[in-house]
Amino acid sequence: MTGAVETTGEIISDDLLFADESTDEAALAALRNPPWLVLIVDDDHEVHAITRVVLGDASFEKRHLRFLSAYSAKQARALLAEHRDIAVILLDVVMETDDAGLTLVRHIRETLGNQQVRIILRTGQPGQAPERAIIATYDINDYKAKSELTAQKLFTATVAALRSYQHITLIERGRLGVEAVMDAADHLFEQASRADFLRALPERMAALLPVAGSVLLCVGAPDGAPDGAPRVLSAASAGGEPLDAPLPDAVMRDVRAALADGRSRWGDRHGVALLRSRSQAPHALCVLADASLPEVEQRLIELFCAKAGTGFDNLHLVERLQEAQVATVHALGKLAEYKDEVTGDHVKRLGRWATAIAHELRARDLFPDELDEEFCGMIGLASVLHDVGKVAIPDAILRKPGRLDAEEMRHMREHAAIGGAILRDAGGDGPRNCLSMGAEIAESHHERFDGGGYPHGLSGDAIPLSGRIVAVADVFDALLHRRPYKKAWEIEEVLDLLRAESGQHFDPRVIDAFLAVLARDGLPLVA
Amino acid sequence: MTGAVETTGEIISDDLLFADESTDEAALAALRNPPWLVLIVDDDHEVHAITRVVLGDASFEKRHLRFLSAYSAKQARALLAEHRDIAVILLDVVMETDDAGLTLVRHIRETLGNQQVRIILRTGQPGQAPERAIIATYDINDYKAKSELTAQKLFTATVAALRSYQHITLIERGRLGVEAVMDAADHLFEQASRADFLRALPERMAALLPVAGSVLLCVGAPDGAPDGAPRVLSAASAGGEPLDAPLPDAVMRDVRAALADGRSRWGDRHGVALLRSRSQAPHALCVLADASLPEVEQRLIELFCAKAGTGFDNLHLVERLQEAQVATVHALGKLAEYKDEVTGDHVKRLGRWATAIAHELRARDLFPDELDEEFCGMIGLASVLHDVGKVAIPDAILRKPGRLDAEEMRHMREHAAIGGAILRDAGGDGPRNCLSMGAEIAESHHERFDGGGYPHGLSGDAIPLSGRIVAVADVFDALLHRRPYKKAWEIEEVLDLLRAESGQHFDPRVIDAFLAVLARDGLPLVA
Repeated sequence: MTGAVETTGEIISDDLLFADESTDEAALAALRNPPWLVLIVDDDHEVHAITRVVLGDASFEKRHLRFLSAYSAKQARALLAEHRDIAVILLDVVMETDDAGLTLVRHIRETLGNQQVRIILRTGQPGQAPERAIIATYDINDYKAKSELTAQKLFTATVAALRSYQHITLIERGRLGVEAVMDAADHLFEQASRADFLRALPERMAALLPVAGSVLLCVGAPDGAPDGAPRVLSAASAGGEPLDAPLPDAVMRDVRAALADGRSRWGDRHGVALLRSRSQAPHALCVLADASLPEVEQRLIELFCAKAGTGFDNLHLVERLQEAQVATVHALGKLAEYKDEVTGDHVKRLGRWATAIAHELRARDLFPDELDEEFCGMIGLASVLHDVGKVAIPDAILRKPGRLDAEEMRHMREHAAIGGAILRDAGGDGPRNCLSMGAEIAESHHERFDGGGYPHGLSGDAIPLSGRIVAVADVFDALLHRRPYKKAWEIEEVLDLLRAESGQHFDPRVIDAFLAVLARDGLPLVA
Repeated sequence: MTGAVETTGEIISDDLLFADESTDEAALAALRNPPWLVLIVDDDHEVHAITRVVLGDASFEKRHLRFLSAYSAKQARALLAEHRDIAVILLDVVMETDDAGLTLVRHIRETLGNQQVRIILRTGQPGQAPERAIIATYDINDYKAKSELTAQKLFTATVAALRSYQHITLIERGRLGVEAVMDAADHLFEQASRADFLRALPERMAALLPVAGSVLLCVGAPDGAPDGAPRVLSAASAGGEPLDAPLPDAVMRDVRAALADGRSRWGDRHGVALLRSRSQAPHALCVLADASLPEVEQRLIELFCAKAGTGFDNLHLVERLQEAQVATVHALGKLAEYKDEVTGDHVKRLGRWATAIAHELRARDLFPDELDEEFCGMIGLASVLHDVGKVAIPDAILRKPGRLDAEEMRHMREHAAIGGAILRDAGGDGPRNCLSMGAEIAESHHERFDGGGYPHGLSGDAIPLSGRIVAVADVFDALLHRRPYKKAWEIEEVLDLLRAESGQHFDPRVIDAFLAVLARDGLPLVA
């Protein structure tokens, strides 16, 4: 304990003491208009008493004063550490030492980095603290000799200091708020999917609120929805309040109005800002708070919405490009097997098996140099391209109902190298992308771990990892399903073959990982 | 003219009058440390004279004071309109009217919206302006009765006011700066290419500088570059200075150092901030100015670099996706014509013709509903897909050396509908993208304007515009080049055919546009 005394100003005490049924109202008023904190630092108890009498009924901008008392610079440090929102300090100079007050000024500005608090120096011994030198040297905001300090002068100095403090905290909040909005917007930009984006949006906004409150993101009702109520897409609460309650009528009215005319609405205890983007229907960001939102916060909320709109458009662009890419790769795979007997479902299942194997290998910390998140995210799509080389195989061989002879088989096997070449030529020889991985897979998915495969007879780790994974997935799925030239195998027969070929045809680490996946997840994907 | 008198404080005047060879230095010092502007508003000339004597040699933070004098509220308004950077106003109350000074306070805060300037009210008749009511009601920062205002008190009040003003302008600059950085970053995000991005980057930074200066964007020398000097990628100047001069040695040293250790450098007349991103080598943003950059500007420059880094990564992601998309579509086109006799060059040229036609039609304001920027940017790539349906045509028909009989021709013509179906199935049935436009082109590029084409026998505007454009480009290029079954036509023969078929096979507006393009640009693309 610091021994510091803390009391509230007369007016506030009276309000709380004598208010009966209106206590709630008074408490709410205090919440909305919290008192200004004024710290009196003086080793003379009389000065504290007089100050409280003189300023006790003062108020500024409808907020009363609350006093903190410190009788030494040391006590003042403790109170300053505890209260970050002291607005004004009435500071004596000579206390524990002749310059205790001046040393405290340095501590506040330099050590605490508190530039906001207004410091009024009040000295009883101007000889110890010559005015001209002090005001020029120390970062104080007023200098008064106690002898000249009438009640009126103290009032004037305090109100002027509160006015400055209010102004400074407001623009400081604006500056910090804009930076916080910027960071929040950056975070939104990092979201990889629409679902993540929609979830992060109210979360980030709630974190920006200076007070506890809830944020909900709404869109207009889809055309023809029976009740026409805007839908809440996601919500977050800064104070942990439950979010399942329906929106109050007044709020819902403002959401509808904002969505209809595109203008924000600011109510007593809520605000509705519009989130516009080029790519999406307008959304409404709805903020529920304990009091009306000050103008500086309204501005920050609208700024956040503007940035979120840009983020929406950016995400939309990236998603459209990704969708187009996925569609085009699937078209490639489909084109290649147009004359093949294999159905498109084989390619889809194969992609899922390959992805599951890659994730399992990554979870096992195998192949750390190759297996990153990107690899796992890409192999499913890239594997669609494994047989594109078949486009070059003559119809007569590709569609021959019976066994291929040696020459025909030689032709057929060319599809691996040709597929690799087509994809590399098309742009798959640059940095890793879907085409370069597809080229790798097309070329290497018929290699065998023991070196007996084609086209290059590579063995072991010389075979690209993507090819070793797709080799397992391809054979597994081909055996498990019926083809024109073979019946579907039982799952146990297939697993027996995989085990038997582990270390022969297949990389044993890949087989182990796949068997573990199948044992754990079953065959949910074989639908 | 307002009749207002403007003079400078004694010290500054003396400096300029008596400095001989050091004039440049003094001017430079004045530039780096511009004086604080103090406006004296009083109808008593004596007050102006005394104030100038008392505060004439005052300085705060190494900056002297420069005085402006107004002898009425009206003159003060004129000076305030002219000088936006007045720091302190020493303001009389009773002038033209009993409350001229108070009315001026309202004008400053409310009409001019100037919250920064510090206002010290100095009244000779406190009866006209009772202190307690005035300080509480008017947005002033100090209240003094002239009777109590000693030289020392005036000095104290002025320094305290300058200190507040400096603090407020600094955080205000910080807030506005952060918002400006945010806008600049948004602008960077809108750049569609790396070249545009690199050009916009120093431009936007230069526009953010509060003083004239130049901004250069550098990257490290590529490995093994003979002189090892970092390269300037782009530059911009806020003041229109020429930018072709080589970087001063001191600046170049800091650029190298920053690129090497990743830390920013702040020199006397320059700053070097590092621009990091996940996707690019580090870049250095180099700011040349007339003086050292204040801390608040350094922070803004670094903030801008951080945002630009995010922009770089975003652009990189979008560009990678676009490149992959282009490559994949080309792979699709290539796969489809693997067994066809047509070379890949036909597809490339066809894309260029189609793009040129689309731009020309747009320049002529034709088809405004369909022909937007996106259409023009997409048709070149989408046209690559016009013959994908040939993948379904039996080898025997596709590669038949002679003429096709009626049945074979019927088969061959199926490629249009099949191509459309394959691409639509693959994802080309959603919003316009490369696949959906490709589907449209594949299906309709053999329709004729007069209704005699296939597969649907559509005519006129019922044929998709993309198909009408590609029909012209396809036939033009096919005739102009040799095919196994035909020789290359002369350009005049081809043009005659286009003219003859205008309104028959082809849309006459498309033919007109194409002929205009060829007449204007020649055949530079037929290489």
